[in-house]
Amino acid sequence: MTKQLGYRINLIAAALGKEPLDLKLTNLKLVNVYTSQIESVCLGIKDGRIASLDAASLSALHEMDCNGMFALPGFIDTHVHIDSTLLSPEQLATLIVPHGTTTLFADPMEIANVGGYAGMQALIQAAKGLPFNLWIEVSARVPTAPGLETTGGTLDLHDVRRILKWQQSVSLGELDPAKVLGLQQEYLAKIQSAHLRNKIANGHAAGLLPQDLTAYACAGLADDHECVDIQDALSRLRLGMAVLIREGSTERNLRNIIQGVVKENLDTRMLMFCTDDKHPDDILHEGHIDWMVNQAIQLGIAPITAIQMATWNAARHFRLDHEIGGLGTGRRADIILSENLNPIIPQKVFVGGKLVAENGHLIKAPKPAHYPGWLKQTIKVTRGKQADDFRIPVSGKQVTVRVIRIYPDQIINQAETAQLAIEHDAVTCNTDGDVIKLAVVERYGKNGNIGIAFVKGFGLQKGAIASSVSHDHHNIVIAGVNDADMALCVEEIENMQGGLVVAADGKVRARLALPIAGLMTQAPAQEVIQTLKELNSAARSLGCPLPAPFMTLSFISLPTVPELGLTDHGLVDVRQHALINPIVGVI
Amino acid sequence: MTKQLGYRINLIAAALGKEPLDLKLTNLKLVNVYTSQIESVCLGIKDGRIASLDAASLSALHEMDCNGMFALPGFIDTHVHIDSTLLSPEQLATLIVPHGTTTLFADPMEIANVGGYAGMQALIQAAKGLPFNLWIEVSARVPTAPGLETTGGTLDLHDVRRILKWQQSVSLGELDPAKVLGLQQEYLAKIQSAHLRNKIANGHAAGLLPQDLTAYACAGLADDHECVDIQDALSRLRLGMAVLIREGSTERNLRNIIQGVVKENLDTRMLMFCTDDKHPDDILHEGHIDWMVNQAIQLGIAPITAIQMATWNAARHFRLDHEIGGLGTGRRADIILSENLNPIIPQKVFVGGKLVAENGHLIKAPKPAHYPGWLKQTIKVTRGKQADDFRIPVSGKQVTVRVIRIYPDQIINQAETAQLAIEHDAVTCNTDGDVIKLAVVERYGKNGNIGIAFVKGFGLQKGAIASSVSHDHHNIVIAGVNDADMALCVEEIENMQGGLVVAADGKVRARLALPIAGLMTQAPAQEVIQTLKELNSAARSLGCPLPAPFMTLSFISLPTVPELGLTDHGLVDVRQHALINPIVGVI
Repeated sequence: MTKQLGYRINLIAAALGKEPLDLKLTNLKLVNVYTSQIESVCLGIKDGRIASLDAASLSALHEMDCNGMFALPGFIDTHVHIDSTLLSPEQLATLIVPHGTTTLFADPMEIANVGGYAGMQALIQAAKGLPFNLWIEVSARVPTAPGLETTGGTLDLHDVRRILKWQQSVSLGELDPAKVLGLQQEYLAKIQSAHLRNKIANGHAAGLLPQDLTAYACAGLADDHECVDIQDALSRLRLGMAVLIREGSTERNLRNIIQGVVKENLDTRMLMFCTDDKHPDDILHEGHIDWMVNQAIQLGIAPITAIQMATWNAARHFRLDHEIGGLGTGRRADIILSENLNPIIPQKVFVGGKLVAENGHLIKAPKPAHYPGWLKQTIKVTRGKQADDFRIPVSGKQVTVRVIRIYPDQIINQAETAQLAIEHDAVTCNTDGDVIKLAVVERYGKNGNIGIAFVKGFGLQKGAIASSVSHDHHNIVIAGVNDADMALCVEEIENMQGGLVVAADGKVRARLALPIAGLMTQAPAQEVIQTLKELNSAARSLGCPLPAPFMTLSFISLPTVPELGLTDHGLVDVRQHALINPIVGVI
Repeated sequence: MTKQLGYRINLIAAALGKEPLDLKLTNLKLVNVYTSQIESVCLGIKDGRIASLDAASLSALHEMDCNGMFALPGFIDTHVHIDSTLLSPEQLATLIVPHGTTTLFADPMEIANVGGYAGMQALIQAAKGLPFNLWIEVSARVPTAPGLETTGGTLDLHDVRRILKWQQSVSLGELDPAKVLGLQQEYLAKIQSAHLRNKIANGHAAGLLPQDLTAYACAGLADDHECVDIQDALSRLRLGMAVLIREGSTERNLRNIIQGVVKENLDTRMLMFCTDDKHPDDILHEGHIDWMVNQAIQLGIAPITAIQMATWNAARHFRLDHEIGGLGTGRRADIILSENLNPIIPQKVFVGGKLVAENGHLIKAPKPAHYPGWLKQTIKVTRGKQADDFRIPVSGKQVTVRVIRIYPDQIINQAETAQLAIEHDAVTCNTDGDVIKLAVVERYGKNGNIGIAFVKGFGLQKGAIASSVSHDHHNIVIAGVNDADMALCVEEIENMQGGLVVAADGKVRARLALPIAGLMTQAPAQEVIQTLKELNSAARSLGCPLPAPFMTLSFISLPTVPELGLTDHGLVDVRQHALINPIVGVI
């Protein structure tokens, strides 16, 4: 894993004027995050790194006049799930890099649930040619609910320790409180393993009460990205936890927290930014970390302070300040050029000293990364392609069933009951009452499990919708009125080796193939955004009122979010962490 | 190296109220370095760590009412050479811990030059029972001048990599610019090895010109402790190097730098404190890091900011903020209690949750640490115990010699020449002109080398003074008028297995034994301070006007500080990095 010394020697030699610089950026106003000052400099770059802030007198192979623009360090997204964009990393680059995001700290728990250790290796291999820095937050809980779900891969303590050794791993990924407060040694040992490598352990402290939060922090968890307001933030900061302010597609916490920071004039050193889950169309129309920085400035944070939050604060917290986070000598030349600091509009973006984006677009279209064949062949369905697979045989007139009551844009749900009619010795859906079937089909070819229950809130009047993205096990989840259409969805997803489907009347109405681990596609971002629109309108045409039906579908099977979850094992009472019968009684 | 999880489990359980706390500190005003705020709290401690900031309702085995005192994190000395105090770590504890210093980041290059890897191991072993945290800055250059000096031990790249793996090692120790600017791969590889462990590499950028400083920073060196004024500090900070503000016995940089920080209202995040070389009597009479904090406050730094510099800033820079630097949950319970914040006077000091010092004194006298026998038997003199060993045979009337001109309290010197008379075919000293002999006797039993030259500035009218502390090789260095007394000093140092000696007229006038590696003693600090006084007055009685003759003696043989140095190999022209003849000509 030891890199060659060559680049370091060249860098020093160039700084001494013994070798020409690769590139000289003249006429710059440098935003110096170390001194919180702005200074006019001439930047020298060699072998992808900053060789000098005083390069005027040094010779260079290339030179660029920056016309007095501001130069700031590339932005850092401190917690993101790449998979939630449905895009492969190189396609995601076309969206985020033009916005000045040059580093992602990503928790690839989705690909880990599908492919385990080898899946993580494949991701790192594929990331080699990316026009941004990708570091891994090593997924701490794969699977999330051992014994209650079937996954393609697992990461045990030994695997996590091996991955923490990688230079591309930056921390232990988010760990849910239950495992810590439950004093489960495997997870405490994972935290310790990160510390022994001088790496941090990321937290995930959603909605914890004060005493539980204190105990959670005692475990050595360094931060939280689940704060929704300034009270949440303060309660973490005072314990010594950093706050990763999140602005995703549905979770939008920036305004509340920043307004509080401004009002109380708080120390911002422990504050940084993340997106967690932000969908491609939102990134396209709104922006990425740059948008958060500009929002913070508009809310009253000084531009240099907001920039520090998006760069140096993150690099220091994650202990990479010798590599990124500031335009200091020896650091990677990840640079944003902007004419103004309010708002910051990345006109030129350099990564590793190379100009990679200009005026909102990548200069070179990313070349498709290579993924191993096995990772594109992860859908192996043994049961679920026949209508009968979704039949719930019961003799009687009427049945009382448990129903998962969902709400738009929320991942939590409520447990309800409903009465359903029995026809031909099988339970039927009730479209008038919006009680339809929900199924999870095991897709790793391991046991052919199918979990079936009932759901309220999808509003489907006919047909079915399905996805191979279903947190965190990522089996195939299907919501449907009609068993045959449900089976058709599963068949189509197997044909595509992963993806999203809408079907009705025996026909596929819309589809998006996600062949990489059944989670991601290498298709162009714009095309994916367009196809998602088609999928959503197809679902709407079947009666679904949800703004983002496939996101709702992808979270509904979580066995860890109250009150109910559904896995391939069956219906899960989340609080009891146990399987329960979807059928309460029959008359 | 993996620690048990027990303490972590107990900590979480105590925070949850499932186990009693070990100690509860009630009625406290907590200086919260994370939020820069002061809050009234009840601190809960379990297994040596902070379990809760809200412990009022938790049960505890012991409870202490702190009467509204301020609680602040223990202070951190970010760069210190323990050996320069002549005290063993446990004896040094009696001086520094009552002043609130609970963590030392120490570069034990002296013991490494004597004992190599095994010497470092012995130090870590001996440190186990200390009432403060000792982390190692792994010595980067042992020996300092390969080929120009004989040392007892060496640390090659392989050794350094092994030591960097230790949990007790925090960084790569200070690296002199020559090796970096000279592009010596061994040293660049050592820096890289630290980075690959997510540890930093400490700098030593004394008096570098701007371009050399830039190149030095390009090597990946994270900080500098040699800044003498605000211009020095600013020139490092803007490149992304932290500034370890130093206040030692002779190097006193705090006032200049802090006045500049206040004047320019600079960001203090990259500023922290160190002592480097501070002698026991100065620590006793003046204080340690607490003294620096109070000075900074007097000069206009806000108390909380000054405290952050002495604690959290240091912990973050050295990437130990999950362990120390703030009173956050999960961190070590290293706590200072003070009635006021201006000045801060440590009334009670806790280390690892134990009350170890009160009202300026350790509560329990430290028990002597165990050092292996071989480390107390490091003086093996094969030549240097006979007067003849110091005779410089020359035939003629008069000789022109090179002279090392020294100055009080400075480690640099100037090259001069002088005429000396020849008597009985040997060069004689000239006490009227204050030109006397300087010798370095190899003391590791390796080759019996003796280097002899001439020195001006010691003012000795008779006798000799000698020390086994002579940077960085730590052979025996002797300044003397009389060959017999010089030999007597060497004999006495061998008898003591290391130490300081003043001899005249064939008698030893004063002595201090330093049996641990010939560098340190386990005698009580007060006793050592007293003996040092006796040694200095004995030297004065021989005519020496220097305020600290033994410190001057310990630095004069450095082959790396201009203009001249003297090692067991002979007289060194530092700039040429070559041996030269002390005799210029004879008539």
